[in-house]
Amino acid sequence: MTETVKSFLTEKNYTAIKNLLSPMNSADIEHILEELPFEMLPVVFRLLPKELAAETFAEMQSDMQQYLIKKFSDHELKEVLSEMYVDDTVDLIEEMPANVVSRILKYSDPETRSAINAILQYPSDSAGSIMTIEYVELKAHMTIDDAFSIIRRTGVDKETVYTCYVTDGNRKLIGVVTVAEMFLSDPSTKIGEIMETNVIFVNTRDDKEAAAITFNKYGFLALPVVDNEQRLVGIITFDDAIYVIQEENTEDMEIMAAMSPSDKPYMKTGVLEIVKNRIPWLLLLMISAAFTGGIISGFESALAAQVVLTSFIPMLMDTGGNAGGQASVTIIRGLSLGEIEFKNIFRIIWKELRVALICGVTMAAANFIKIMLVDQVSALIAAVVCFTLLATVLIANVVGCILPVLAKKVGFDPAVMASPFITTIVDALSLLIYFGIARLLLGI
Amino acid sequence: MTETVKSFLTEKNYTAIKNLLSPMNSADIEHILEELPFEMLPVVFRLLPKELAAETFAEMQSDMQQYLIKKFSDHELKEVLSEMYVDDTVDLIEEMPANVVSRILKYSDPETRSAINAILQYPSDSAGSIMTIEYVELKAHMTIDDAFSIIRRTGVDKETVYTCYVTDGNRKLIGVVTVAEMFLSDPSTKIGEIMETNVIFVNTRDDKEAAAITFNKYGFLALPVVDNEQRLVGIITFDDAIYVIQEENTEDMEIMAAMSPSDKPYMKTGVLEIVKNRIPWLLLLMISAAFTGGIISGFESALAAQVVLTSFIPMLMDTGGNAGGQASVTIIRGLSLGEIEFKNIFRIIWKELRVALICGVTMAAANFIKIMLVDQVSALIAAVVCFTLLATVLIANVVGCILPVLAKKVGFDPAVMASPFITTIVDALSLLIYFGIARLLLGI
Repeated sequence: MTETVKSFLTEKNYTAIKNLLSPMNSADIEHILEELPFEMLPVVFRLLPKELAAETFAEMQSDMQQYLIKKFSDHELKEVLSEMYVDDTVDLIEEMPANVVSRILKYSDPETRSAINAILQYPSDSAGSIMTIEYVELKAHMTIDDAFSIIRRTGVDKETVYTCYVTDGNRKLIGVVTVAEMFLSDPSTKIGEIMETNVIFVNTRDDKEAAAITFNKYGFLALPVVDNEQRLVGIITFDDAIYVIQEENTEDMEIMAAMSPSDKPYMKTGVLEIVKNRIPWLLLLMISAAFTGGIISGFESALAAQVVLTSFIPMLMDTGGNAGGQASVTIIRGLSLGEIEFKNIFRIIWKELRVALICGVTMAAANFIKIMLVDQVSALIAAVVCFTLLATVLIANVVGCILPVLAKKVGFDPAVMASPFITTIVDALSLLIYFGIARLLLGI
Repeated sequence: MTETVKSFLTEKNYTAIKNLLSPMNSADIEHILEELPFEMLPVVFRLLPKELAAETFAEMQSDMQQYLIKKFSDHELKEVLSEMYVDDTVDLIEEMPANVVSRILKYSDPETRSAINAILQYPSDSAGSIMTIEYVELKAHMTIDDAFSIIRRTGVDKETVYTCYVTDGNRKLIGVVTVAEMFLSDPSTKIGEIMETNVIFVNTRDDKEAAAITFNKYGFLALPVVDNEQRLVGIITFDDAIYVIQEENTEDMEIMAAMSPSDKPYMKTGVLEIVKNRIPWLLLLMISAAFTGGIISGFESALAAQVVLTSFIPMLMDTGGNAGGQASVTIIRGLSLGEIEFKNIFRIIWKELRVALICGVTMAAANFIKIMLVDQVSALIAAVVCFTLLATVLIANVVGCILPVLAKKVGFDPAVMASPFITTIVDALSLLIYFGIARLLLGI
């Protein structure tokens, strides 16, 4: 597609580009534009119908947006901004340098500008920071007919018209009513009679992840956001919730792999930024691993007496890391989906102990046979290795399930307690056991 | 809450339970029921209003559902089933033993039964398997007024009324129109004039993950599902898409931690089932790690000469695993979000090489200082360790970024190529380099 657009551009066949792009969805147009050289962007962008242009603009990566804004005339900028939803404008502003921000604010209308400023005040991980202010607000005394005319009159500027919010004289949220429910009642019915008064909402200061989980739980189209006086200040729509869910999942995976989370796509992240997200963790884990090395140094004479023991160290370390990683990731995910809570900790430990026992005994047995047949060392050495393996798996599973639960309890992100961290702890414990048993059984 | 319900139950104060639960959302009621002993379930369940009862039933874990079905009279079962959406009934059937399934099918009405049977034919990871058949179908010649009366008449049984689908005489999908758009046009306008004809849809046989990604991309409320002749057969609603997204994320995390994915919550999964998901991977990785051990055995005499080299093995192995894990998880996530494609492979390798160079040199330098100051071994040994460290990080990052991309290219799940797998490969390579450099510099 991008190639077609490019060739139309060189032929200066603008009508063809217009006809090609106009029936498309903004997400698809963005995908095509993404592959164009920046200098071609403004021409193609100006060929799009006004509303579609704004939608496409909202979908773009920030570097493309910044380039376009630089090329926009004041009039063009104003037009794009007037078509955008406030939450998208806020996202845009958060990514732009100061001079671009002041230009954006200058060309937003005053009401939008104050809404933007209000949303920008909320912490970046709060529900307030992802909400939008374009919702349909009704009063309890209105009839369904009144409601439908409000929707007809103002709906085109609202992010969703399907869920409407009912407020009292102080703008306090008192009810919620859906268009589907309004369809099913007589048009003269008062909103107050059919509205749901048991409203589920989030506070502006709640964590945006908590808001996303609420969505997932109830299957709502939109979730109202209120301030401390329970006054309605915005809504979060389901598409933003999906975005937050994906973002949180990415973050969890990054943290589990011992990286600082980044909200930029990989292809757009610079080398130094990637290094910055990774190297503190690598150094930290390297220093911890040095302690494990210290344990080996402490048993150097034992190893010198039985060098063959060294060759089983990688297998013991890797298996410990793998078993601990399995347990920790299972628990971390269960915690973040709300399936596991702190009060379950003893049931979890008991379950993981039994899993570890079965896995450990099976692997120890397999290993014993392999060592006797393939490595052909003494049965005593095989016994040392296999006992250590069993103990390692037991410890790994218990450490792997306890640490994430404790981390969550004391307010840390449980995802930190994934494989890399667990591996380092289990490695050290496993080697201590290895040399301990070796000393006991082999008398070294 | 559960305690309150329990105490009302012992007081036989059923009205209080009814008043407490009736205004609640089904998801919250399910959460309360989950903590009740099974034998209390039927009593509480029978106190719920009919529709809410069915909604709550659809939210339950399969063991609770199975218990309730066993206790239901034929009439009760019929009533619950008639209130449930077809996609929820299909989910229910997939979890129930054969005798319960035949009872469910017996008490479903004939039309629903044939729809259920059709959906059950689709592979479990297909778009067809998660669709529902309750959608609003319109014709192009209808007016908006006609459409609204259809919605008024049939809407209560549809999962969403907000997006309506337009089909021709052969039930082929030719357009889509939203209630919001209908609100904004004159009621006498023909649907054919305002419908969007550039319809985005999925095929019944498409992967359900692909369907979820389509949702995420376009921000739709519902996505039509068509057969090979492009006839409309169902829709997927956004709440099912969120569910699929979460399920796929969990699956990815499980695979990345070297486990077979499970779709049951941890607390409801038996020990043997957990073992079954974990042990094949543990054994496989253990066998691979044995090869790494073999490399050490091959250099036993070198190690005997310089036992101190052994003490750096854990640090080298762990760091290689961590660096490789960082690179692979970044790439795996980028692939599954569609941010990275096969054609980017050379840019990725080049980027990871530069990241690895900076990280590797920094860590090697830190390590050199630490070895000289703390371990106080010869500078030559420190050099061996630090060169190996640099080489390990370089290899780890390259292997970590190439393998997931290649896996995807040949049709495997890239998530398999995460830390545990990468660690095993990098360990072996790292040790080969270690001993190679040691031989060269130390002449052992």
